[in-house]
Amino acid sequence: MIHLSLIGIGTGNPEHVTLAGVRALQAAELILLPRKGEARSDLVDLRRLLCRNLLDEAALSRVVEFDLPRRDRRDDYLGAVDDWHAAIAETWREQISCHLPQGGRAAMLIWGDPSLYDSSLRIAERLELPGQGVEVEVVSGITSLQVLTAEHRIPLNALAEPVQITTGRRLRERGWPEDAASVAVMLDAGGAFQALAPEGLHIWWGAYLGMDKQCLIDGPLAEVGPAIVERRAALRERHGWIMDVYLLARTPLLSRMPG
Amino acid sequence: MIHLSLIGIGTGNPEHVTLAGVRALQAAELILLPRKGEARSDLVDLRRLLCRNLLDEAALSRVVEFDLPRRDRRDDYLGAVDDWHAAIAETWREQISCHLPQGGRAAMLIWGDPSLYDSSLRIAERLELPGQGVEVEVVSGITSLQVLTAEHRIPLNALAEPVQITTGRRLRERGWPEDAASVAVMLDAGGAFQALAPEGLHIWWGAYLGMDKQCLIDGPLAEVGPAIVERRAALRERHGWIMDVYLLARTPLLSRMPG
Repeated sequence: MIHLSLIGIGTGNPEHVTLAGVRALQAAELILLPRKGEARSDLVDLRRLLCRNLLDEAALSRVVEFDLPRRDRRDDYLGAVDDWHAAIAETWREQISCHLPQGGRAAMLIWGDPSLYDSSLRIAERLELPGQGVEVEVVSGITSLQVLTAEHRIPLNALAEPVQITTGRRLRERGWPEDAASVAVMLDAGGAFQALAPEGLHIWWGAYLGMDKQCLIDGPLAEVGPAIVERRAALRERHGWIMDVYLLARTPLLSRMPG
Repeated sequence: MIHLSLIGIGTGNPEHVTLAGVRALQAAELILLPRKGEARSDLVDLRRLLCRNLLDEAALSRVVEFDLPRRDRRDDYLGAVDDWHAAIAETWREQISCHLPQGGRAAMLIWGDPSLYDSSLRIAERLELPGQGVEVEVVSGITSLQVLTAEHRIPLNALAEPVQITTGRRLRERGWPEDAASVAVMLDAGGAFQALAPEGLHIWWGAYLGMDKQCLIDGPLAEVGPAIVERRAALRERHGWIMDVYLLARTPLLSRMPG
């Protein structure tokens, strides 16, 4: 039997990990540390730092780094993702078979939380290990949306109102979701908010959340939208990669009464 | 100057607190522990347990318990909430003025995360301390939705699809939000999902998440909906209180391809 812990580690700040996350990491006999290509090496560095902070010398020898396959940039997005997940599951299988041939406890450190726009659970579903069962455990971690709201000192929802969590792609295609007072946007390849009429909207934006190079901008979308697009491009150029999220709202999120 | 840390502590499991939360708690000179009435004493007990686990004897003497005012059960929901927040802010002010007259670091332990259906930030906005500024810091915590998805081993969103987080009240009034493939429901006084046509919907429900008495049910809504309503009433009767959340989806959340 393989016991696989998917451990959410938060975003950028090694202190975002929970005590349950620390315990699961320390209990693992194999810690899988996938590399996603050089551009995002900061993200691998964070995982390495976490391991160094939380594990002793013996446990550090259980950390195994390996390269992930890349996703096809073809037009059929869902099909490309499907193939990509199959290829990733195969790399997981190889590492687990090699390092835990008799079974045991494996762990993966997941950026953010395994439940939100993360594919680890879907990939784990495909994991087939000949002659062995796979038992998956999820350890929740702080998401980038939580760090965004914490750093801006705002709630995600207006008082008693719903909030929509969506993707940049979807925001571009469909515009403002009808039933939401606030909208959190993830996985935006850049400036999807430009598809919206900015009047009456406020934006709270954050990049590299939790890291030393964290950058926050907020204000009326009409005023700060162009500055965010410009700053995002400059930061991406400087660091070679960027991860950012933002929250949009029509009503002041901290006001005593909506509207 | 008063530095006020709003520390998210997760739901039910004392190991859900983050390392940043532990650090903020240990740095506090005053730890405010509000009591919400006897019925929910389990929730106060969790905060007490966290403090005992994480603080030494000297630091434990900085924990101050006090009673929160109750919310008016009048029809004007938002007005009643507004008055209630003002009354809570006044109790915070009293405690801080009394225990940190010269300023310093205060902390509050927040169930879940301060950003999601929690009013601490709105109450802190109203905090006026004569002659002192108030600086608020938010330390993110694991929300009940994250524990729900972790325990059911599912993601919150279908692949590349948006998710709506809403309230029981809203679900009853407006039905299924048009632009969402999955809907997470919080603050439901009980069985708001009965307002939906159950065909084609799956539900993942959880009560007392993270606690020893945690209860999980999932299945097609048409099949398990009535059982959830029944179980919820029985649990509430047995324990004197209940906190539950659930996720609804039209599409299998773990499927390789949507639909």
